[in-house]
Amino acid sequence: MSEQLHVDLNCDLGESFGNYQLGDDAAILHFVTSANIACGFHAGDPTVMRQTVKLSLEHGVAIGAHPGLPDLVGFGRREMAVSPEEVYNMVVYQVGALSAFVQAEGGELHHVKPHGALYNMAAANSGLAEAIAEAVYKVKPQAVLYGLAGSELIKAGARVGLSTANEVFADRTYQQDGTLTPRRSPDALIADPAVAILQVLGMVKEGKVRTQQGEAIAIQADTVCIHGDGPHALSFARHIQEVLTSEGILLQAKGGAVK
Amino acid sequence: MSEQLHVDLNCDLGESFGNYQLGDDAAILHFVTSANIACGFHAGDPTVMRQTVKLSLEHGVAIGAHPGLPDLVGFGRREMAVSPEEVYNMVVYQVGALSAFVQAEGGELHHVKPHGALYNMAAANSGLAEAIAEAVYKVKPQAVLYGLAGSELIKAGARVGLSTANEVFADRTYQQDGTLTPRRSPDALIADPAVAILQVLGMVKEGKVRTQQGEAIAIQADTVCIHGDGPHALSFARHIQEVLTSEGILLQAKGGAVK
Amino acid sequence: MSEQLHVDLNCDLGESFGNYQLGDDAAILHFVTSANIACGFHAGDPTVMRQTVKLSLEHGVAIGAHPGLPDLVGFGRREMAVSPEEVYNMVVYQVGALSAFVQAEGGELHHVKPHGALYNMAAANSGLAEAIAEAVYKVKPQAVLYGLAGSELIKAGARVGLSTANEVFADRTYQQDGTLTPRRSPDALIADPAVAILQVLGMVKEGKVRTQQGEAIAIQADTVCIHGDGPHALSFARHIQEVLTSEGILLQAKGGAVK
Amino acid sequence: MSEQLHVDLNCDLGESFGNYQLGDDAAILHFVTSANIACGFHAGDPTVMRQTVKLSLEHGVAIGAHPGLPDLVGFGRREMAVSPEEVYNMVVYQVGALSAFVQAEGGELHHVKPHGALYNMAAANSGLAEAIAEAVYKVKPQAVLYGLAGSELIKAGARVGLSTANEVFADRTYQQDGTLTPRRSPDALIADPAVAILQVLGMVKEGKVRTQQGEAIAIQADTVCIHGDGPHALSFARHIQEVLTSEGILLQAKGGAVK
Repeated sequence: MSEQLHVDLNCDLGESFGNYQLGDDAAILHFVTSANIACGFHAGDPTVMRQTVKLSLEHGVAIGAHPGLPDLVGFGRREMAVSPEEVYNMVVYQVGALSAFVQAEGGELHHVKPHGALYNMAAANSGLAEAIAEAVYKVKPQAVLYGLAGSELIKAGARVGLSTANEVFADRTYQQDGTLTPRRSPDALIADPAVAILQVLGMVKEGKVRTQQGEAIAIQADTVCIHGDGPHALSFARHIQEVLTSEGILLQAKGGAVK
Repeated sequence: MSEQLHVDLNCDLGESFGNYQLGDDAAILHFVTSANIACGFHAGDPTVMRQTVKLSLEHGVAIGAHPGLPDLVGFGRREMAVSPEEVYNMVVYQVGALSAFVQAEGGELHHVKPHGALYNMAAANSGLAEAIAEAVYKVKPQAVLYGLAGSELIKAGARVGLSTANEVFADRTYQQDGTLTPRRSPDALIADPAVAILQVLGMVKEGKVRTQQGEAIAIQADTVCIHGDGPHALSFARHIQEVLTSEGILLQAKGGAVK
Repeated sequence: MSEQLHVDLNCDLGESFGNYQLGDDAAILHFVTSANIACGFHAGDPTVMRQTVKLSLEHGVAIGAHPGLPDLVGFGRREMAVSPEEVYNMVVYQVGALSAFVQAEGGELHHVKPHGALYNMAAANSGLAEAIAEAVYKVKPQAVLYGLAGSELIKAGARVGLSTANEVFADRTYQQDGTLTPRRSPDALIADPAVAILQVLGMVKEGKVRTQQGEAIAIQADTVCIHGDGPHALSFARHIQEVLTSEGILLQAKGGAVK
Repeated sequence: MSEQLHVDLNCDLGESFGNYQLGDDAAILHFVTSANIACGFHAGDPTVMRQTVKLSLEHGVAIGAHPGLPDLVGFGRREMAVSPEEVYNMVVYQVGALSAFVQAEGGELHHVKPHGALYNMAAANSGLAEAIAEAVYKVKPQAVLYGLAGSELIKAGARVGLSTANEVFADRTYQQDGTLTPRRSPDALIADPAVAILQVLGMVKEGKVRTQQGEAIAIQADTVCIHGDGPHALSFARHIQEVLTSEGILLQAKGGAVK
């Protein structure tokens, strides 16, 4: 008797700051099974964090911390020459802060996914990856570590004893070595939603993705990154939710509620 | 059979930031029984927080979070028109962040003491006091809330169900209503260490302090604030530790180790 | 032969920050004659500042610096216990930074208007008002100082030798002493655009405003504050521009271009 | 008739922040001819900037802006993936802010020297170098641009029409291509003050430096970097000042006062 196919849909949330609003968190929460909430370094502030935690709990969505580099004006998207020790410390700090809001609202932290440049650096740099994994393990050993499928971060998470979730992208193309085609390449993005959804289906159902070099490679798809802003974000989220469900795929964060 | 007299000696620590060093934390830890560690808003950063937590654990000193206003350049000493909701959120955030470091190093958060302007506002403003008390209770119900002896913060802590520690000052004079003489007054400070120590002895042994108006009033002295910087900080800390011990007073944070 | 009636329409601009967009600067610039550009303390960043300066110059709108308190998360709206010396320094800093962008783009700084809580504090507190006026005078003696009509800031500007512009509000009610009705009062705002425009006309043409106490008081209206965000901001800006023009009132910043 | 040999001694100043003190600015100002003052991004704040400008003017020392990356906790020493446009904007901002203090105190900005990681990136990256040079030229065309001797920054400064000052180091060793030996190398630093001073003399008098590869290469020494902190900073500064003077070398910033 085989287990039903399942996948998690995750989205970055709580990226507003003070007087600044970003994204439509209340709307996207209808379509995802896990939320990555900004922790105040690249976006978010204590008031936004609390509101987003409450909103996520109301929607039964699994809550994750989304720690980033200390670069608010750059939205955590600019790589910085940070040391593994600095990264360990900034992750402990941010995961602790977000966890406190989750606990105060009666929930429990489900996962951690690094943001932006920190995510990208941790995908390729094993020292930074290990620093993140250790920080998560020390603060919340039962948390799931989200990272780029097959990346150094996933490997480091497994090494320190964390559950991990391999993240895949609907609208990004892949290289033969399993990395994403860099954004500066003209063929980095998949503009056609139908193609994007087919890519996700192939990854979830067959564990494969066709690369830009034309061959299919193996990829593990535990969680799909869903964007929360942009003009078509909501309709795409609804669409992918519908297609996956109609294909009999369970939408569920690891150990979380079914959507 | 009566319980032995006891009191806690607390000190603000971990106030360095990045390239900036402040205070001699390693030295003062020999003389105090509890440490209030800055959480990154008015002072401290993730790396400093971790180092200070480790150092405090090595010295067997009870660890507290020392949340402040988001005002690094003003060191959290400038009052700000923050709402109770904002204060609740900034305390949850900072206590959570510091707690994560304590947990990661194998310790447990012992107390919370607000810093600077937040401490002063919470002493007089019951709305802000309640916001702080609730934040601490939600994140760490077993933590002790430190506040000015007899202040609104102490009352709010008791109301929400927290243990509290009434803080007294060796080198500050008191008014008839139990408040500190404002710093702008010429007689706000006690310059003579001998007088300062006598004041502490009176507060701890008899539960009384003589005010600037000349009368003795009742005061509960659970914890004494020890300064960590300034030219005479260390010698004063050593001196008060010796005198209290020689008077048979146990130096101990509530539930913490004896010094 | 009498001079033609004239008034300036000013608006706060450049309040975006990093990844965060706020307001529709390009649209509102069609309707105002002077722009107050945020300087990075309460809003704005170097990239936003440059873009807003360029945009304002393209529209022939007089450019002012809009310095605020160092409180990004509070958008400079929370009063802080800052000293006159701190205020002097933060205004020199911000005016200098904005001036550099104006000069780099071939323009010239026209005015300075403090933002939010700094504006309100400077209206009532002569020490802070003087600190701001002196800072502006030292950095740009030919700049016009914008402040609440008849306030301490206007008086301080005149004392140090600056040109000043008395600012009036279309949608706020006034008290007998010339101050604005505090926002917490139920009758603080004028919801009806027609009433708001009539109030402006009365202030510009007759130099009078009817207060909440029912009497008309004298008020000098050199510049009218136009809001740049909110659902009806643009239509109201267009409307007030049309009405004032049709009444034969020249729309012009002091020494600036006619709109 | 030949011009007298001359060189400038420059030092980074104004690196305190809020409650944090760094360096002994008042002491080092006796020995240098130009000061690079932090502008609030990596160090410094408006109050520190004003005090340091006043102090420098009192000592007749030429004042420069010392713009850095927006990374206070990292002291501007961590490289960041910033774009040329971002760098242009952050330099305009910081130079403008510092210039305003200089002007307010009756002085004039003499030079600009980028700080830390920004200095290093601009030495090697012509795009960032050009962004800095253009920013300086737009805000203060008469300012001298300080940069690593022979680096991309010096070349970019010359291209845009700025005066430049080639900076050399007393206590760092050089590579055959004129770059500094990276700090991670064991032979990066010259520990012996006598050797360091001989290196400076050779650079100033003969325009040559012996590299780690053993050969002498040509180097232009317009200004020598003097450190303001560390246990031996002051004695070394005094020593190098004495030796250079005794060798008949004029100590003078370009166009500045003789020391």
